[in-house]
Amino acid sequence: MKRRDLIKAGVVAGAAAALSAQAQSAQANQPGILTRARNLIFFAYDGMGWEDYAIAQFYARRVLGRPMALERFLATGVSGLQNTNSLTSFVTESSAASNAWSTGVKTVNGGLAIHIDGRKLTPIFALAKQQGKAVGLVSTATITHATPAGFVISNPDRNAEDQIAEQYLEFGAEVYLGGGQRFFDPAVRRDKKDLYAAFAAKGYGVVKNLRELEASNASKLLGVFSSSHIPYEADRRFQGVDTPSLAQMTRAALPRLAASSKGFVLQVEAARIDHANHLNDPAGTLWDILAADEALEVVMNFVDQNPDTLLIIGSDHVCGAPALYGAGSSYRESSAGVLMLESQKGTFEFMLGRLGNNPSPEQVVEIFRSVKGVTLQPEQAQVVVDAITKRAYLPDAVRYSVQPANTLSWVMRQTNASKPDLPNIGWNSGQHTASPTLFGVYGRGIGAARIGLIDNTYNFTLMTRALGIRFQNPVMSEQEALEVLKSRAEVPWNHPEDTLALV
Amino acid sequence: MKRRDLIKAGVVAGAAAALSAQAQSAQANQPGILTRARNLIFFAYDGMGWEDYAIAQFYARRVLGRPMALERFLATGVSGLQNTNSLTSFVTESSAASNAWSTGVKTVNGGLAIHIDGRKLTPIFALAKQQGKAVGLVSTATITHATPAGFVISNPDRNAEDQIAEQYLEFGAEVYLGGGQRFFDPAVRRDKKDLYAAFAAKGYGVVKNLRELEASNASKLLGVFSSSHIPYEADRRFQGVDTPSLAQMTRAALPRLAASSKGFVLQVEAARIDHANHLNDPAGTLWDILAADEALEVVMNFVDQNPDTLLIIGSDHVCGAPALYGAGSSYRESSAGVLMLESQKGTFEFMLGRLGNNPSPEQVVEIFRSVKGVTLQPEQAQVVVDAITKRAYLPDAVRYSVQPANTLSWVMRQTNASKPDLPNIGWNSGQHTASPTLFGVYGRGIGAARIGLIDNTYNFTLMTRALGIRFQNPVMSEQEALEVLKSRAEVPWNHPEDTLALV
Repeated sequence: MKRRDLIKAGVVAGAAAALSAQAQSAQANQPGILTRARNLIFFAYDGMGWEDYAIAQFYARRVLGRPMALERFLATGVSGLQNTNSLTSFVTESSAASNAWSTGVKTVNGGLAIHIDGRKLTPIFALAKQQGKAVGLVSTATITHATPAGFVISNPDRNAEDQIAEQYLEFGAEVYLGGGQRFFDPAVRRDKKDLYAAFAAKGYGVVKNLRELEASNASKLLGVFSSSHIPYEADRRFQGVDTPSLAQMTRAALPRLAASSKGFVLQVEAARIDHANHLNDPAGTLWDILAADEALEVVMNFVDQNPDTLLIIGSDHVCGAPALYGAGSSYRESSAGVLMLESQKGTFEFMLGRLGNNPSPEQVVEIFRSVKGVTLQPEQAQVVVDAITKRAYLPDAVRYSVQPANTLSWVMRQTNASKPDLPNIGWNSGQHTASPTLFGVYGRGIGAARIGLIDNTYNFTLMTRALGIRFQNPVMSEQEALEVLKSRAEVPWNHPEDTLALV
Repeated sequence: MKRRDLIKAGVVAGAAAALSAQAQSAQANQPGILTRARNLIFFAYDGMGWEDYAIAQFYARRVLGRPMALERFLATGVSGLQNTNSLTSFVTESSAASNAWSTGVKTVNGGLAIHIDGRKLTPIFALAKQQGKAVGLVSTATITHATPAGFVISNPDRNAEDQIAEQYLEFGAEVYLGGGQRFFDPAVRRDKKDLYAAFAAKGYGVVKNLRELEASNASKLLGVFSSSHIPYEADRRFQGVDTPSLAQMTRAALPRLAASSKGFVLQVEAARIDHANHLNDPAGTLWDILAADEALEVVMNFVDQNPDTLLIIGSDHVCGAPALYGAGSSYRESSAGVLMLESQKGTFEFMLGRLGNNPSPEQVVEIFRSVKGVTLQPEQAQVVVDAITKRAYLPDAVRYSVQPANTLSWVMRQTNASKPDLPNIGWNSGQHTASPTLFGVYGRGIGAARIGLIDNTYNFTLMTRALGIRFQNPVMSEQEALEVLKSRAEVPWNHPEDTLALV
């Protein structure tokens, strides 16, 4: 074939895929899936933005001495960007983002696979289950959290995790691995129901720590490894917190799902990147991205060995919009902020757990020294004490409202303009933001190559096409949704994310 | 041709292009240019990030009622991301970024088309000139600013703009349109040289305002429309500041360049997106992106009508990392920050010019009301007065160091958590940041389609390949560069960007 024909063919393949695309927002150049996939893996980075990516990329290259698997993905796979806005808000939270992925339609922030008027939507993994495919959910959040839950069940309230745990029992996925013991444990559930026993009665192996996970021979698994979210990777790695890593959970899930005669669908979520960004905790974010990268490596290897598998990766939104900012004359000292992260050996979540409700300035100095590798001045320590004991928050309690954590982060800001004495990393806020995010597809049989910017709802189109499913969830217009919202009582501000694990 | 063959061919075309790629960092999936281009247009967004893009995208859709040309580009063109780090710093400034684009090699922040050890590099437009192509530079910065200058000349000091103006005279591009009268005017130049006369003697039409620009029949043009940078689009549009827009300058440049018998190369730079972000000025950023969009429309139309033209777009780095952050319960009130921008009718640069060195709190209240549509409380006005008169800066004078502007921005922050009373837009800092940025290619003859993440140096490979040029600039290692830097005296911190136009 001549060069000219190759080009022509490439362009034609792109156009053909584009013409058959069915997304909520018109897109001319979406990647087409041109061969069916037996297995589908959706790898979710919760709350990761491009600035997070940059910091982790440079840390991996420079400190770890090797590029991330994600860098390899971006250099060799099909990748682009996705818009993340929800139906009525330019900034989404994780439930509406999960819905866009899993149902292909935009919804109002707050509910799972449901419209604000109560119309239920059918999520992608429920459709796949109807095909006989095995289903798996793996997350470092509570396994009942919005991003995994929105792929399998409907619920008007993403925070009804007690109830979502029961819906999981009924749904009957083959693998549930994550945090959230408190939603299964009869000693903690408000209704005292014993969901551990109920899952066991349905044939699940029920495991609660890494040893049990690795020892289990059960073909179906409920694994919940912490009361709330799974502790951060930085604390697992450096502070001896004993839970499985995302890669370990993923490795446990894959062979069980791959045993299915009709293939499987799996969501793997690196959930706590989002939480670390809410808290403005640079080591929390970095190490959870690096832990995600180990899991991505596991998944990419599986796809390489099982080429009838389609892998989709994506971030649901940006959070905190952290960034390494230019420092020093002509910004020549900028890299310091990344390199200094090497001395951070734990998270604000861990530190706050240790400090308790009434720490002394000396305790604050000591824990910043031992966990963050940072020497605070007495007045800085006092700022932390005041944040914890008097709710005196800096620099601002509206924009930076995940407190006292955001104040702990503010205290660690660079003070020497010529050469960073503290990491030159800053945050925009403690909230989600509006940026387009990571989107990528990996695997054989991916058709057209021009991607550019897609809408997050297009992930559903991709997945249904790969699985050979024809299904359209009901679309709601923004105007309809706004009218429903208008008719309801105003609700006081509450933070949509339960970001702090109860440690 | 069968579907399967189409896919195969598309993939093969991608692989072929990748194998011949010559970039500083290995990339498997770069877009190949498979046909020669007569004309080349490089469209630079200075300091634009994805969060900026999101805000502008939603403003255009919702308030203006039409998508941006850039949204169309991203949906239909070949686009991806580029890494922006300079040779020795994870955060670049505009000269090293311009060099990466124009010379294909990484350099230390600060010089133009030159290594830190003094080795000169040959920039892309100098190579194109040797081919006989006409050359044009259009910018809203001083036309002698880093991003345009790095495409045509070498200079160890990006701030030597008096000298760069003389280098432009010698270089002899056909079109120079932008700001920077002070570097050409004998009454202002330190050496009293009359560069206006010198350009006129070489056959240039010399124009200094929109009327002169539109009236000129000259085939070669020097147009400088303001003493320093061209004022922001928001001030041009709403405050009656009288300068040409970026689209008007671009429209003046294109027919003059297109008259060349051997084709042309042109850089169009939307320069002040960067400056507005340094200042943390949301209306400044928004309207300069929208002004860029009008110019992009002009350029895309030209490419559509002259398909032997290759258009490359890119952002050199992110600046300030602004973001619309989630607001209200479940983030349902988040869109407010974008919609409120409609009442902002000018920039902090304009306001600071009006306020002078000793404003009263009442003057501050009045100018925020009339220009930003914002009612400040007396204590907020006093913060602004103190920033201007006492250099008392908020929230922090290191990270937010483009002052007093960053304090003016801080004063306008949201104070009602349930429903934004002021725009829920925040900044990370007053500095450049490390994120990968926009990259895109538009035009016929673009080969492979899988892009993903490229290095900014790959733009040079693309341009030389499109123009049929074989040339490699000398590569310097980071280690060599660090040794040269180490041997030099430490320099005190200075801000690398001259962001405030002298108005």
